[in-house]
Amino acid sequence: MAEVTMDKIVSLCKRRGFIFQSSEIYGGLSGAYDYGPMGVELKNNIRDFWWKEMTQLHDDIVGLDASILMHPRVWEASGHVSNFTDPMVDCKQCKSRFRADQIDLSAPCPVCGTKGSFTEPRNFNLMFQSHIGANTDSSSVVYLRPETAQGIYVDFKNVVQSSRVKVPFGIAQIGKSFRNEITTKNFIFRSCEFEQMEMQFFCKPGTEDEWFPYWRGQRMDFYIRMGIRPESLRWHQHGPDELAFYAKDAYDIQFLFPMGWQELEGVHSRTDYDLSQHQTFSGKDQSYLDPETNDRYIPYVVETSAGLTRNVLMALSDAYDEEEIAPGDVRTVLHFHPAIAPVKVAVLPLVKKDGLDEYAQKLEKELREDYTVFFDRSGAIGRRYRRQDEIGTPYCVTVDYQTLEDNTVTLRFRDSMEQVRVPVAGIAARIKQEMKDYKRPQGK
Amino acid sequence: MAEVTMDKIVSLCKRRGFIFQSSEIYGGLSGAYDYGPMGVELKNNIRDFWWKEMTQLHDDIVGLDASILMHPRVWEASGHVSNFTDPMVDCKQCKSRFRADQIDLSAPCPVCGTKGSFTEPRNFNLMFQSHIGANTDSSSVVYLRPETAQGIYVDFKNVVQSSRVKVPFGIAQIGKSFRNEITTKNFIFRSCEFEQMEMQFFCKPGTEDEWFPYWRGQRMDFYIRMGIRPESLRWHQHGPDELAFYAKDAYDIQFLFPMGWQELEGVHSRTDYDLSQHQTFSGKDQSYLDPETNDRYIPYVVETSAGLTRNVLMALSDAYDEEEIAPGDVRTVLHFHPAIAPVKVAVLPLVKKDGLDEYAQKLEKELREDYTVFFDRSGAIGRRYRRQDEIGTPYCVTVDYQTLEDNTVTLRFRDSMEQVRVPVAGIAARIKQEMKDYKRPQGK
Repeated sequence: MAEVTMDKIVSLCKRRGFIFQSSEIYGGLSGAYDYGPMGVELKNNIRDFWWKEMTQLHDDIVGLDASILMHPRVWEASGHVSNFTDPMVDCKQCKSRFRADQIDLSAPCPVCGTKGSFTEPRNFNLMFQSHIGANTDSSSVVYLRPETAQGIYVDFKNVVQSSRVKVPFGIAQIGKSFRNEITTKNFIFRSCEFEQMEMQFFCKPGTEDEWFPYWRGQRMDFYIRMGIRPESLRWHQHGPDELAFYAKDAYDIQFLFPMGWQELEGVHSRTDYDLSQHQTFSGKDQSYLDPETNDRYIPYVVETSAGLTRNVLMALSDAYDEEEIAPGDVRTVLHFHPAIAPVKVAVLPLVKKDGLDEYAQKLEKELREDYTVFFDRSGAIGRRYRRQDEIGTPYCVTVDYQTLEDNTVTLRFRDSMEQVRVPVAGIAARIKQEMKDYKRPQGK
Repeated sequence: MAEVTMDKIVSLCKRRGFIFQSSEIYGGLSGAYDYGPMGVELKNNIRDFWWKEMTQLHDDIVGLDASILMHPRVWEASGHVSNFTDPMVDCKQCKSRFRADQIDLSAPCPVCGTKGSFTEPRNFNLMFQSHIGANTDSSSVVYLRPETAQGIYVDFKNVVQSSRVKVPFGIAQIGKSFRNEITTKNFIFRSCEFEQMEMQFFCKPGTEDEWFPYWRGQRMDFYIRMGIRPESLRWHQHGPDELAFYAKDAYDIQFLFPMGWQELEGVHSRTDYDLSQHQTFSGKDQSYLDPETNDRYIPYVVETSAGLTRNVLMALSDAYDEEEIAPGDVRTVLHFHPAIAPVKVAVLPLVKKDGLDEYAQKLEKELREDYTVFFDRSGAIGRRYRRQDEIGTPYCVTVDYQTLEDNTVTLRFRDSMEQVRVPVAGIAARIKQEMKDYKRPQGK
């Protein structure tokens, strides 16, 4: 296997329409990215895979989609207004600003060279701030949410009252969050605008130690089912220095990104901290009355918090390979699990003439009912296969002269590059079965 | 049919977990809404219905997901910095602010009663403004996008270069936009945070008058296929006073909302205005070289621009009914098309005991592979049916004593309230067929 570097991923992403820098024609906006035709399909597929897993397949979880703009008191209750900060220093001479922990405070300013020009470190809040309504005084301040979880907590009682759920149950949510990160780096790994997939599981105090290992198991299984190689995943337990003061226990799922092991998802046992804070700050009762035992309590929470955009980077990194398929002939290939591959099937007429193109178009139209399809009629067939390999299309269907005689096509497999001859009738069902039975080849 | 009022819709939405006001426990945030367990499923279904229609089923359209934060020059090029404004006046006495076109400027201030206290009207920009990076001077200004379309224009060349598309082709996008509306009203019809579903179709200058009627037809058909009653939809052509100065022609699809006919979607012929503006402001060539004719031109655009959140309000309003099913006995029902219904199937054991609950749970688990399922074991069966009617569940499956004997269940239809006895084996396929054949009954 070839070494996977961030440069290779970034380059492939731009070349093949996965990810572009935001506002590139204007010089770009740092920390913001656009998902191109392939990227949006990949991201949507991961999003849908998670949503189905967490809501449809778990009868004790319901969904939610809370707004990005929330009442500012929410972020006082959550602690973000006071504590979600980085220490910053300014150069008094040139007014440049730096993160205090990333600069030598006794050295000259790296911009203007002045010595002893730094201010004392001051805390800089990472929330984006704006104003709602016609006034711009402090009464109109709103923040772009820095995490989706608070929307779940704030709606806890509304969900209980409207949705016939009983503790233990979970609320799942996917949505954008924003953090004014001064140091964005590693492509979409840490950006100012990103997407999260979070689930808060509300349980009776005292049962959290049963649910915590359950959810750790569920979440790791999820990535294996998504086709991620087990050797690219590991657990990291938070030590005493990392654990939030209210948290009982916390594990991160780490993935081996091109820059090393980094957090992909957190599974955290958060006690009743969040609901209790909102009870205090809102003055509204957040307790739950157990209809069977008549016990009243504030539920404990086990949280699973994953980055969707970080998942996209994981999927790309884990799928990427360069394979020497003949001496000096290297193909770039993305070994996506078919469930998340942006394009499921490519339909390729061997040549344009003699009715092959029309035949292929008809087949394309049929397959589009069930699958995302790429139709490609131009260039040598080998080069067209390579293009599909580069975007991770698991199946190519080629229409050739024999097709006109006996209504069979070749079905080509991305990973093995093997081709088999199959009847056109039933090709959609055959692909469905292949997707279901998919196994990534060992060592790829 | 009962009169559909906004109050009834708002009340049902809160009671059944469709839509809550944002941050309600903190007194709410005006103009922002949360989609509860039913609302998020409804919204996602409409989103997916549009996405499949516009990308998967149209081989000449690709998807995109551009960021909400963009380079500020984008909004200078688009005209939003200069022109996206409402005229406002302040009361010099009490500092209250009003929209100049919604107040009598010669009357006393409606807040403090002072006469002649208003300032001259000043233009107030509707874009939310924030700052990115560590500084808060003018160099760091960013806006929350007020529309998704500009992301498509700015990425036009990136898509052409990476995605093997040829003019004519379209780029489709779904995402949030933000407008600091001073007067939010009519529930989710006009809110500060909302979602759009936009498609820009790029075509050769001179061909826009072929594509414009094509897309008008496509977009109206879409709503009919989504199950919206044709009599609730109509066209409105922009008059000379409504048409943007660069636009060639523009039609809106209007829907008969509870407060009257209002815009649901715009289909606009926008010429090459947007790409030309970005060419001027970015200094980057935005022309397209036709590979067959070697012509070079800036494509013309036909845009289809719909509100996803507005679609949710449409779906709720059009589906809502109150039916007197016996003298004095009124049921509230949502006649959603099954494709967009939040829950497809309810599984109901007639009683909990004698193994009926376990049988029903097993059936529920099987159905969850394919459908969103609601399991409800408590209360009289009639009341349980009514609860499902109120959230628009098209099919209820009831497990009773006969089920244990012959493995049949009753399948109940929401619209007709008819029940038929069917074998458990093949129930998933039966529901699939029913969904495909669904027709809303006349007059409902």
